[in-house]
Amino acid sequence: MREVFVDRDVLSGDDEAELAALAARVRELAEAMTLTKVEPAEAASVAAEIAALTERLKAARRAHPPFGTVGESGLDRQIANPVTGRLNPLAPPVDIEVSEDGIVRAEFTLPAVYEGPPTFVHGGVSAMIMDQALGMAAAATGTPGMTATLETRYRRPTPLGVPLTVEAKASRVEGRKIYADGTISGPDGRVTVEASAMFIAPQSAPAAS
Amino acid sequence: MREVFVDRDVLSGDDEAELAALAARVRELAEAMTLTKVEPAEAASVAAEIAALTERLKAARRAHPPFGTVGESGLDRQIANPVTGRLNPLAPPVDIEVSEDGIVRAEFTLPAVYEGPPTFVHGGVSAMIMDQALGMAAAATGTPGMTATLETRYRRPTPLGVPLTVEAKASRVEGRKIYADGTISGPDGRVTVEASAMFIAPQSAPAAS
Repeated sequence: MREVFVDRDVLSGDDEAELAALAARVRELAEAMTLTKVEPAEAASVAAEIAALTERLKAARRAHPPFGTVGESGLDRQIANPVTGRLNPLAPPVDIEVSEDGIVRAEFTLPAVYEGPPTFVHGGVSAMIMDQALGMAAAATGTPGMTATLETRYRRPTPLGVPLTVEAKASRVEGRKIYADGTISGPDGRVTVEASAMFIAPQSAPAAS
Repeated sequence: MREVFVDRDVLSGDDEAELAALAARVRELAEAMTLTKVEPAEAASVAAEIAALTERLKAARRAHPPFGTVGESGLDRQIANPVTGRLNPLAPPVDIEVSEDGIVRAEFTLPAVYEGPPTFVHGGVSAMIMDQALGMAAAATGTPGMTATLETRYRRPTPLGVPLTVEAKASRVEGRKIYADGTISGPDGRVTVEASAMFIAPQSAPAAS
């Protein structure tokens, strides 16, 4: 993926922190919006002010989301990713850490904007988080790849609003294929979701530096 | 799931439209935020104004996202769902239609906030959309259920910013198990993602009315 990096603005740590703070405010606004029951006139007034703020942000605009400077692989640099990206208001964000032995792990809590069945996490949201965690586990082998297959098994409902843990690890590498497995578990330690994935590295894949 | 419906505010069409308009403005703000390159002082000023608007929306707050009145099944009533919900700024939203013969279909376009590999849709986002479409196809049999397994196969990268099509249909029902299959395809009609899922209906599942 190195060739497309040249199209991207690469942010300094300070610029990234400033935009992460802005994204956090938009995230809070989105959560408040989904639960609000203000009167229609007030909703319309707030909507008009939001539209004006959007215009202010569009006054200077990039063609693509920026990348960060920190991180060991291309995945870490995707600071506007919809799962882990601090610069993406749609991301919870899940702050995934990769240990030296290649274990990927994060603790996170999902608010009501991620709801599927009433009071539970949307099954597709769990699959999305697993795809990212398994992809980072695959990349930790030194060979990042694109998802080829993702299988998600739902053992029990995953609750909203409580601390969840995602863990993943690559199991094997066969040529350009990297296999990884992982879980999401609830605050009682019981696994709610299991997932397995296979990633395929590009033919010219650079080793992670 | 009928028992938890009693906890929910059920919106009139007018109230739903008003909040859908507000959600659309928040969605546009989130997209503009991820691409903005305004100066730090301007970003901080906009962030402060967003925080003030969030407080205005929190002045009257529900415990859970509301449901809609329209729709044939519980899934249709989830108007704040993270995939299809017009009241959820995190949802694209994918406006899924269910035909009389049980075929689920939507056309949609994903902006840069859904990016995974540069210029392509995040694999987890595709899985999330498939979970919703397959779930609605399963529910169209008259027996809605919770996702038990979801298998997603990535045939080629799915491009951002162009019209995509998702289609799904239930293949068979075996007792409480409902099986469904579907695809996402690009503007050239080529399939980019295939998915299969099995859903399990609750023991007391009501037939869709």
